[in-house]
Amino acid sequence: MDCYLAVDIGGTQLRVALYPTEGITPLERHSISTRPEQGNVLGRLKDLIAGIWPNGSKIRRIGIGVAGPVNPQSGILYNAPNIPEWRNLSIRHEIEGVFETPVVIGNDANLATLGEWRYGAGQGHHDVLYFTISTGIGGGIILHDRIVTGHRGIAAELGHVTVLPGGPMCGCGQRGHLESVSSGPAIARYVSERIAAGRTSSLTLVTPISASDVAEAARQGDPLCIEAFDFAGRMLGQALANYLAILNPSLIILGGGVTKAGPLLFDPMWAALRASVMSPEYLEGLQITTAVLGDEVGLIGALALARLE
Amino acid sequence: MDCYLAVDIGGTQLRVALYPTEGITPLERHSISTRPEQGNVLGRLKDLIAGIWPNGSKIRRIGIGVAGPVNPQSGILYNAPNIPEWRNLSIRHEIEGVFETPVVIGNDANLATLGEWRYGAGQGHHDVLYFTISTGIGGGIILHDRIVTGHRGIAAELGHVTVLPGGPMCGCGQRGHLESVSSGPAIARYVSERIAAGRTSSLTLVTPISASDVAEAARQGDPLCIEAFDFAGRMLGQALANYLAILNPSLIILGGGVTKAGPLLFDPMWAALRASVMSPEYLEGLQITTAVLGDEVGLIGALALARLE
Repeated sequence: MDCYLAVDIGGTQLRVALYPTEGITPLERHSISTRPEQGNVLGRLKDLIAGIWPNGSKIRRIGIGVAGPVNPQSGILYNAPNIPEWRNLSIRHEIEGVFETPVVIGNDANLATLGEWRYGAGQGHHDVLYFTISTGIGGGIILHDRIVTGHRGIAAELGHVTVLPGGPMCGCGQRGHLESVSSGPAIARYVSERIAAGRTSSLTLVTPISASDVAEAARQGDPLCIEAFDFAGRMLGQALANYLAILNPSLIILGGGVTKAGPLLFDPMWAALRASVMSPEYLEGLQITTAVLGDEVGLIGALALARLE
Repeated sequence: MDCYLAVDIGGTQLRVALYPTEGITPLERHSISTRPEQGNVLGRLKDLIAGIWPNGSKIRRIGIGVAGPVNPQSGILYNAPNIPEWRNLSIRHEIEGVFETPVVIGNDANLATLGEWRYGAGQGHHDVLYFTISTGIGGGIILHDRIVTGHRGIAAELGHVTVLPGGPMCGCGQRGHLESVSSGPAIARYVSERIAAGRTSSLTLVTPISASDVAEAARQGDPLCIEAFDFAGRMLGQALANYLAILNPSLIILGGGVTKAGPLLFDPMWAALRASVMSPEYLEGLQITTAVLGDEVGLIGALALARLE
């Protein structure tokens, strides 16, 4: 029987799974901790793949998703924020060299987009934007039924656009990016900074505040915490209005832990989007929905890439 | 001999030209004033096409570019800002009905992008952004060798993204769009408003100030006029940094009358772009250049569309 092998390289976990030629139910699935501080991540990844390699089946292609900027044409990973020892690493060459099987590779957010489009919330659409809103804000773009990677493979950094010039510092070193105002840490920081400045809240600074703490307190009616999501949602809505004018998609998929806040985030997002959109024509036929593949999206995205033509 | 017919429908002029199967030198070229206030623009357009129709040659395809949002799949023009009598007009159906020749249609800025990419400054690139900076700011996007039109044909409104929340009013009714700070009228308004508020300048409010007046005065050293271009250029550079993160193009083409200001605009643009870009990798291999097709770009864009596939 022919199979596909999917690999998801994250900062916390290395995961591999074996899939048949149809469907998204794995035949087998292994994972280990990434432990970048232990070194030799590449060696342990190769062992993990060897461990799942089937006897008597042919692997048609290996699909690999990795957190970090990667060039899909050359197969070179420029760097991996969570695996410092990997710089300008030709993952494709390394894996093809050992397993003598074609390897395709992509950035994790791009592959999540591909996964949701082929097997999740995006099925049947041709022009799709995907946002993952969690510790950071990543994204992916499908246009004319094709993932947009750009000239050097680093397109679709949808969280790294300026929405508030001079605003909060972003993880990338710039100020006022969407990630700096609408990600989980940004929401938590919004509340922490204001408590530190004397605002009252049901939350305290005794232990570090997380975005899910803020969501829980907002649901209990805490005004500061409601305000924090209102701000994050409005900034997101304003950014979406820009993305509609640029790319005119029929679907926007929102994934990542912060979207679990639901209406706390989505109500102000929709209000700002409706108020900011250049013309109501961009909202005609537009759907905004949440991601459906959950934690499996990394593997399923890598599978979707492996199965592409 | 086989030919292609290109039609450029502008607010000021209706232009048609006949081209051979190769090259961009027209065999013949006619134009008339649009005069929307006279009515019957469609009838006069049909007469203009009939007037250039060759005897004994076959027209393979008619390419039409029009200023306004148009759906390239359906051939329906939603509206034309300069021709109020045209709303939800199926131009393709109208022209095919009379001339019994296949018609392809696109938005003028998208076709200008196509023209510059196939026959102008963009040759050899696969991922290109084009901006036309004049009375408004329009644009076009080529990705993977294909023009991006979006779900309903209204993508690539590159001037209608928020760069300065709460900033100046834009022609579209929103505030702080790129068009509201970096277009010709925006540059002129920057100076006029400050003179009205008491700033000194070599320009006066006796006659209306244009962006080319501002450019001329800036070249003579007028501090307020230099400042106006500095502001417009920095806003443009900040917007370009966002576009790099979203689409990672290898080429940005800048056209339109305001680009004649040269370094007055481009120096602050580059400074802001370098300061705002998320990672220097987006600048690697990136070229920013000016458009080369000039006034012919409307017809050549329509020709490029007619010749596609």
